[in-house]
Amino acid sequence: MRQIKNGTPAGDGFRMPGEFEHHRGCIMIFPERPDSWQYGGYAARKAFAQVAEAISRSEKVTVCASGAQYDNARAMLPEQIRVVEMSSNDAWARDYAPTFVINEKGEIRGIDWGFNAWGGLYDGLYFPWDQDNRMARKLCDLLETDVYDKREFILEGGSIHVDGEGTCLVTETCLLSPGRNPGLSREDIEEILRKYLNVSTVLWLPCGIYKDETNEHVDNICAFVKPGEVVLAWTEDQDDVQYGMSRACLEYLERVTDAKGRRLKVHKLPLPKPVVITGEECAGLDNCWDEPTRTPGERLAASYVNFYIANKAIVMPGFGDPADARAKEILQGLFPGREVIQIYARDILIGGGNIHCITQQIPG
Amino acid sequence: MRQIKNGTPAGDGFRMPGEFEHHRGCIMIFPERPDSWQYGGYAARKAFAQVAEAISRSEKVTVCASGAQYDNARAMLPEQIRVVEMSSNDAWARDYAPTFVINEKGEIRGIDWGFNAWGGLYDGLYFPWDQDNRMARKLCDLLETDVYDKREFILEGGSIHVDGEGTCLVTETCLLSPGRNPGLSREDIEEILRKYLNVSTVLWLPCGIYKDETNEHVDNICAFVKPGEVVLAWTEDQDDVQYGMSRACLEYLERVTDAKGRRLKVHKLPLPKPVVITGEECAGLDNCWDEPTRTPGERLAASYVNFYIANKAIVMPGFGDPADARAKEILQGLFPGREVIQIYARDILIGGGNIHCITQQIPG
Repeated sequence: MRQIKNGTPAGDGFRMPGEFEHHRGCIMIFPERPDSWQYGGYAARKAFAQVAEAISRSEKVTVCASGAQYDNARAMLPEQIRVVEMSSNDAWARDYAPTFVINEKGEIRGIDWGFNAWGGLYDGLYFPWDQDNRMARKLCDLLETDVYDKREFILEGGSIHVDGEGTCLVTETCLLSPGRNPGLSREDIEEILRKYLNVSTVLWLPCGIYKDETNEHVDNICAFVKPGEVVLAWTEDQDDVQYGMSRACLEYLERVTDAKGRRLKVHKLPLPKPVVITGEECAGLDNCWDEPTRTPGERLAASYVNFYIANKAIVMPGFGDPADARAKEILQGLFPGREVIQIYARDILIGGGNIHCITQQIPG
Repeated sequence: MRQIKNGTPAGDGFRMPGEFEHHRGCIMIFPERPDSWQYGGYAARKAFAQVAEAISRSEKVTVCASGAQYDNARAMLPEQIRVVEMSSNDAWARDYAPTFVINEKGEIRGIDWGFNAWGGLYDGLYFPWDQDNRMARKLCDLLETDVYDKREFILEGGSIHVDGEGTCLVTETCLLSPGRNPGLSREDIEEILRKYLNVSTVLWLPCGIYKDETNEHVDNICAFVKPGEVVLAWTEDQDDVQYGMSRACLEYLERVTDAKGRRLKVHKLPLPKPVVITGEECAGLDNCWDEPTRTPGERLAASYVNFYIANKAIVMPGFGDPADARAKEILQGLFPGREVIQIYARDILIGGGNIHCITQQIPG
């Protein structure tokens, strides 16, 4: 593994492909942290295992587990899934596994962004985050790919979506948040995204999903289904704070053009009714930084947009909500060549994210 | 990775090849344990890194490092070496990495023997050994090879040598020691070796190197250089206890025939003068089981036979002894197609083994 400190993917002929392009595999991390996953993580591990199994029908899945959880992961996961030992602080492969880029010859490289737990000492979600921040390089070493060292720039994989044709989608709330790169202007950040993802157009949604503690990652509100087309998390309930947020995003998306000069086609994906955490669930969570991680009645950032595009499937969350079926139907219509697999994901949501957040594709 | 509980390599058409056959790679473990490696392992890590670098000129080297040592390993090792995180109790890849077998098509599988730290609670060298014992399966998972689960049988890789043509070489002192498989007879053990290594003849040397705390592993006293030819550690000093031991092995080797009915050609490889540990070295070792690991003046089991055969090189130890050059010359004569690389290995020897003990080839 070569650590590349000079040179950028765009300069070297690499680009980040769309998630809907072909993958050679997927990375996940086995959940364990007792202040993220209720009651010792037993339910979360079952849900993660279901997600891993569903993806493994399409592509090679590698699950990283701590030394303590390795045997358990091996026992819970089917044999076609590879389990490797790797330390982490939590289980968000999307946010700290490498962002992979690919060139014309099909060679891949990783990008090792800096990670500070979604806001560092300003508004980060846990401390320390040192093991998470080591994972991108470790994974590139494991996969024997070269890696761009861009740890000086804080970015999570869940805060970017690309169409593979020059367009990147982000949210202002996240990328401009003071806890990440306070010394960089919007233009500075665009410049880095252009050079590292090899895009020409950065589209800045104003916000994401209400109460999304990642400073509203784009991957919970809006995703490309193909170049020129996105899904947007939507509610018709005008009394819900989310209504104005989704509306603002819609108006932005209707106003802009992508890197190819196209107007975007926006498919509304309904949101489930607000999902709140129960007192019993909160009682199964350790404190974090001497404070309760969550409080009973707290709203969780549930959204069907947080799905993973595997080679032969869409793996999407369900919440036991009447909108589950409708959301599944819409995605099935948008991805006719893929089977939509819906997994009950409340136990992933409690941790603070969903299926897209716990996966990272390896293109090629 | 499939864990095979029924079926054996011989039954499935797999055999253990000779170390001199082609490798696809080599596994090592980064040393860290403070009761094995003096003064925090700094000198040992330098020596291990030299060995890894020398082998990496011939074949892909994967070095397993703990979470704590990962960054340091990555910094100390050249970029062509792959570093992966993996927990262990110590650094003896020969003894607890898988024994690999290969079939006619070039497919490989691992064998996961049981490991109990060279004698378990009877005369084992440390406690616990749980992480070491997990490594074979973990490595097969990492390498995406199937693995035979034979953990019910205690065996270390350093206690066997094969010629790849049906002959296995072991020592009685080790394989019949009461700390390993006390319920099994010599015939029972032969039967397991026949089925798992796919050999027909097991040659039982009476003993190994004096003071070798592995119960005298074969890989420190005798090794195949090709089918029908071995090197044997030898001293001409009749006052040395080792003289009688080497002599007994020589007489045995001159009396037996291999699986092909050949008499063995025995090449004597001189031993260095006895190497003893100093008081200063002992002062840099933590206690183990409330006892000093070593005592000043203790003789170490130094032997040039403990070399590794890489695709293009022989990586052998040196001890700063006048015999270093002669031993190198002999091995160069026996391996004319390979460059002999001699590495000063006192800091590996202090840990209780040498270059062969810290490496495990992946054939193919």
